[in-house]
Amino acid sequence: MAQALREAARGLGRTAPNPPVGCVIVSGGEVVGRGFHPRAGEPHAEVFALRGAGERARGGAAYVTLEPCSHFGRTPPCADALIAAGIARVVVAALDPNPRVAGRGVERLRAAGIEVTVGVQEPEAVRQQAGFRSLVTRGRPWVVYKYAMTLDGKVAAVGEGSGAVTSAQSRARVMQWRNELDAIAVGIGTVLSDDPALTTRGIKDGRDPRPVIFDRQARTPVTARALRPGTIIVTSPGAETTHLEEVGAVIVRAEALPDALGELRELDLSSLLLEGGPRLASSLFAECLVDEVRTFIAPKLLGAGLPPLNNAAYSMTDARALRDVQLEALGPDLLVTGLLNDIPRLEVPGALGER
Amino acid sequence: MAQALREAARGLGRTAPNPPVGCVIVSGGEVVGRGFHPRAGEPHAEVFALRGAGERARGGAAYVTLEPCSHFGRTPPCADALIAAGIARVVVAALDPNPRVAGRGVERLRAAGIEVTVGVQEPEAVRQQAGFRSLVTRGRPWVVYKYAMTLDGKVAAVGEGSGAVTSAQSRARVMQWRNELDAIAVGIGTVLSDDPALTTRGIKDGRDPRPVIFDRQARTPVTARALRPGTIIVTSPGAETTHLEEVGAVIVRAEALPDALGELRELDLSSLLLEGGPRLASSLFAECLVDEVRTFIAPKLLGAGLPPLNNAAYSMTDARALRDVQLEALGPDLLVTGLLNDIPRLEVPGALGER
Repeated sequence: MAQALREAARGLGRTAPNPPVGCVIVSGGEVVGRGFHPRAGEPHAEVFALRGAGERARGGAAYVTLEPCSHFGRTPPCADALIAAGIARVVVAALDPNPRVAGRGVERLRAAGIEVTVGVQEPEAVRQQAGFRSLVTRGRPWVVYKYAMTLDGKVAAVGEGSGAVTSAQSRARVMQWRNELDAIAVGIGTVLSDDPALTTRGIKDGRDPRPVIFDRQARTPVTARALRPGTIIVTSPGAETTHLEEVGAVIVRAEALPDALGELRELDLSSLLLEGGPRLASSLFAECLVDEVRTFIAPKLLGAGLPPLNNAAYSMTDARALRDVQLEALGPDLLVTGLLNDIPRLEVPGALGER
Repeated sequence: MAQALREAARGLGRTAPNPPVGCVIVSGGEVVGRGFHPRAGEPHAEVFALRGAGERARGGAAYVTLEPCSHFGRTPPCADALIAAGIARVVVAALDPNPRVAGRGVERLRAAGIEVTVGVQEPEAVRQQAGFRSLVTRGRPWVVYKYAMTLDGKVAAVGEGSGAVTSAQSRARVMQWRNELDAIAVGIGTVLSDDPALTTRGIKDGRDPRPVIFDRQARTPVTARALRPGTIIVTSPGAETTHLEEVGAVIVRAEALPDALGELRELDLSSLLLEGGPRLASSLFAECLVDEVRTFIAPKLLGAGLPPLNNAAYSMTDARALRDVQLEALGPDLLVTGLLNDIPRLEVPGALGER
């Protein structure tokens, strides 16, 4: 399953609104086929793995990171393909929360006499599929707030030309995330003050995430580096946006942040890497729309500057705890990640586990 | 040497203006004596260890965390005691930066034909002796700023009854530090808002650090829990303090913070655990008077509140880097420690190392 998860990871940031899925087929003690879902409209992971395995799939076992589909979407059901290929055993990491599947893929395989095990490395799979799971069950992308701060809690100094908070290693990790998440979001304040390009740099076969600029009054300059054909401007219903549309921007109009995120779902964005600034992050945090945080902490003290969040809280007991906290030393920096909201998942009922 | 360092640790917080020192005597492959310096005026570590070893010291090796003294202070020179006992080999962790010793202890031993090795576990020893080293070379205590913050960099909420930032494990660690450092410092703001007792709780054979209240206008209420006989009030030259003196407070008058710290040296305080608030910490930080930070980070987000430091910095390049950074997971929290200033030490010259 670890190999299947690595296969799936190759599709991260490319498959929405579909999930990233990986599949490995084992026969006679060796891997005979592997595949991943490269993008929506193209075949699913199981199909690539079965193609690779050919006749050797017969009697073999398929390891797949998400329950095989049981319905006709843009491609025929993968459960049927596994059955037709003569697979004897299927190991599934996690059930598909899509109401059109939701256990029916496993049922279909079992009805055909295939032995099915569900729940192997489920936590890893669910985390990898957070965007897809958010999209199909909550109708909005999974929002990850990434920030880098000093040990005294400052994400930026007050002056211009502030310099980087963290090390090159940490900044390289951010590039990896930009390559893996569907979109990258910033507030208009960040665009006006920093003019970031919001591109993926230094990653082999990397691709740029889609920029999303939260810009209530449509103040984004047409010369902004993040403004490319396809860049999304989230603005208010009445804002004048002709100049932005002329350079290829896609306009999303919404009064409230939850509505705006719902609109992004319509644009097939399953995950959003929120890179700043503190004002936008604070607004999303206040409405419980930040699902995950990824915090770099640099071992230095600044003294003054902007905090990562700055809204209203009266008592320390108002603090929201992170779950699934992970720590990593990254060069001189520290990386802390954790979830504020649960990733939607289906409980594996006893009847669906191994039998 | 590790055993000698553990011996020395037993004196932490009790020996100022002397250093904490440990000594272990090994003969015939076994430990025959051990000792530590319990407090100023009492015998040094070597004396206790030699007493324990008795005649077995002859021909043995002494492991000592600090260079044996060569001068007559309140007690005779330890170098002479080691020579008289017939010790054949002395292993020293670190040289004594006290100008009255500074290598002369080692020279004295060698002149008596004893084999001396210097520099074994020196970094650990130097760190353990930070307070003493600061006192004898800089004339002021070693200042440790301890704070606990949320992952969004807040040490406190704005409301009352804020609740604890960190877990019970982290708070227990703070009690350990209170037991090991000479004094505990807070600003008058903290006294007025929180009325902390500043005592050591839950530590076997623990003792309370000496409270130091930075209180420019002498506003400390006579009912303050931290106000005990011996509590130090650092105030301005003209402040009216009769009411505080009547309850046993010791008054230190100084215009500027460096002077105030110099006065604490006269009161035999070698180390200061600065527990808040942010205003006092910011003032000390601005004058480069914070030597070390110990930061607890709780995996939760508050949104709003007070930062650990809040003074003036214009650019991220103004940030001051920590050295010797150490990370530790402590229950759900993370502990980051590091140095802002170097601990004074003497280089071990080639001639003083092993020979």
